Amino acid sequence: MNQTDLVRQLALVVITDERLSEPLGLDNVLLQALKSGAPAIQLRAKEATAREMSAMVRVFLPMVRSFGALLFVNDRLDVALATGADGVHLGPEDLPIKKVRSVVPPNFIIGYSTDDPKEAIRAEKDGADYLGVGTVYPTINKPNAGEVIGLSGLKSVVESVSIPVIAIGGITPKRATEVVGLGARGIAVMGAVMTAPDPGETVRKLLSAFR
Amino acid sequence: MNQTDLVRQLALVVITDERLSEPLGLDNVLLQALKSGAPAIQLRAKEATAREMSAMVRVFLPMVRSFGALLFVNDRLDVALATGADGVHLGPEDLPIKKVRSVVPPNFIIGYSTDDPKEAIRAEKDGADYLGVGTVYPTINKPNAGEVIGLSGLKSVVESVSIPVIAIGGITPKRATEVVGLGARGIAVMGAVMTAPDPGETVRKLLSAFR
Repeated sequence: MNQTDLVRQLALVVITDERLSEPLGLDNVLLQALKSGAPAIQLRAKEATAREMSAMVRVFLPMVRSFGALLFVNDRLDVALATGADGVHLGPEDLPIKKVRSVVPPNFIIGYSTDDPKEAIRAEKDGADYLGVGTVYPTINKPNAGEVIGLSGLKSVVESVSIPVIAIGGITPKRATEVVGLGARGIAVMGAVMTAPDPGETVRKLLSAFR
Repeated sequence: MNQTDLVRQLALVVITDERLSEPLGLDNVLLQALKSGAPAIQLRAKEATAREMSAMVRVFLPMVRSFGALLFVNDRLDVALATGADGVHLGPEDLPIKKVRSVVPPNFIIGYSTDDPKEAIRAEKDGADYLGVGTVYPTINKPNAGEVIGLSGLKSVVESVSIPVIAIGGITPKRATEVVGLGARGIAVMGAVMTAPDPGETVRKLLSAFR
């Protein structure tokens, strides 16, 4: 995938949380999000076993693909590889990017979470395709997400790298316009879509920041 | 690796446990075990992150290789692939064997834990290279290891498959002779070596069951 296509697909990454999605059900939330144009889904299931996660990918991947969206797997490179997902999203506790790059197929997408400009530069050099940067705004859904870095923290990373930066952490439709204005090429949301009474409507509003 | 070589390498699989090895230190225990001829090490670190596990493999792999031994990674296919380890040892909660086989390099070794003959047959068909079967004898080091299947349970699996069966669970040097007599092609031990005052001596005694 070329950089332009990748940036378009990264405009909005919907991160899953089965518990948060309970009222509507995760499959229903994802279907509504995809129908409304969500271009990327990140399957996140911290409590699931590898077997359970791969079963989830097996269910969701055909649906995601049928809408032309991408499916990333959080943390687990093995699940991503074994299921043929489009990429993996890694953090500091996961495998080093350089090692991951050396074993994945050519077009496999590697995302990396950091809020530190130096680490961002290293991640880009090591082969990351994009960065997830936050927590930009306070959020209640991921209490361990780390320090709130604010818009200035986001800007520091955006200015340090040339790969796309995706802003994460408390992003609402209004704030999406704000972070995009600062140079973020996309946004990632979890609670905003997972807990939305109308996930499709939320996705459409979030995507309007890119028009 | 051909079947004969693999069987020779599987005679004794030393499974790591950093906590149990504390008195001597894991690196020291492994060095003594390898010097005494342990032909395979399985890196097991349930509490470690993928990053920590890959750092451990990076340290141990050159040492293991220098003794002509094999290094398997417990559970984490991603760690095994990214570090160039010799194989992965999977269980029912890990990725399905068939999917794993489809993404690993040609000589990559896949082990699978089961105590059920039907599951053993399926694992062989799906591409497992060997089976870890137990718990044969009661053990205090792995309280969640599952039911004690005894020698009769081991025999049922041995008679169901043609791939090598490695007996696990409470194996002592004397019991090693017993399980080998029943058709197990190898043994796997954790506590017996990890907590041994002289791990080298224990390894030599365990290996003598194969003479």
